[in-house]
Amino acid sequence: MNAALTHRVWRLGADVDTDLLAPGHAMKHGIDVIATHCLEAVRPEFAREVRRGDVLVAGPNFGIGSSREQAAAALVHLGVAAVIAPSYSGLYFRNAFNVGLLLLTCAEAESLHDGEHIAFDADAPAVTAPDGRHLACEPIPRFLLDMVRAGGLVNQLRQRAGKEPLDA
Amino acid sequence: MNAALTHRVWRLGADVDTDLLAPGHAMKHGIDVIATHCLEAVRPEFAREVRRGDVLVAGPNFGIGSSREQAAAALVHLGVAAVIAPSYSGLYFRNAFNVGLLLLTCAEAESLHDGEHIAFDADAPAVTAPDGRHLACEPIPRFLLDMVRAGGLVNQLRQRAGKEPLDA
Repeated sequence: MNAALTHRVWRLGADVDTDLLAPGHAMKHGIDVIATHCLEAVRPEFAREVRRGDVLVAGPNFGIGSSREQAAAALVHLGVAAVIAPSYSGLYFRNAFNVGLLLLTCAEAESLHDGEHIAFDADAPAVTAPDGRHLACEPIPRFLLDMVRAGGLVNQLRQRAGKEPLDA
Repeated sequence: MNAALTHRVWRLGADVDTDLLAPGHAMKHGIDVIATHCLEAVRPEFAREVRRGDVLVAGPNFGIGSSREQAAAALVHLGVAAVIAPSYSGLYFRNAFNVGLLLLTCAEAESLHDGEHIAFDADAPAVTAPDGRHLACEPIPRFLLDMVRAGGLVNQLRQRAGKEPLDA
């Protein structure tokens, strides 16, 4: 296996909604508890077994539903390195970068499989599949990449003000 | 005709990209010139005939392509009151609200026709079709509605700082 292929894929379907990511019954809790319920309805083992650097790969319309930011923050909390999908809810796209979650818009995302390992380059941006295929992604403006790398909008502003970042 | 149905529909297809909205050949100019080329490849009469308060109604994936903000700013400049479509590029969704363009995410958008007049309520949010049907739209968080009504992010910040808004 190519040493660069370090990101394990959790493969999901289309229309993954915010209630799957941050279930309503958990919303009265903090992000640490919400995160333990992330995706429990479709992948009960996910929150327990996900490792830092893993990625979610899904079908179109990822993040539809409510505007709750926790649906993106839960993935950051669990150490998910990126979501890779052909399209996103507009609100989810906005929230995700604001809380420091990288989203790659990739028309061919659905050609990737559960459990395999991939590489991605957020600057290109592109994904490398296990068979060496390069999957092009929609460009991401510099300011959004900078925001994600700073850990989100609030941490970017804190950084500029010379303050310590907040925990995800 | 119901007096509330004041917004004329410009009906477009799916996958309207940023190059249709802000053509590459015009990008060296200011927004006033870019706007005169808006949608020229698919509706040559658009920039000349669009009236303040008109709306664009389109199919899925509105605003795909580049990250150029002018693709949203051109519509603001022309007085377009809203875009109504089933889904948007995530970047376009982000840029649009930032520059003061209201996007309504409406699963049934494609049931509306070119040239007819509709009403919409950004708070509900919902669209009223000429036959009286109410088409539900995805909820829009308060802070984004406030931003759009202030004329976008920069004008909202200027307003808070007690300064005059900039022209679109």
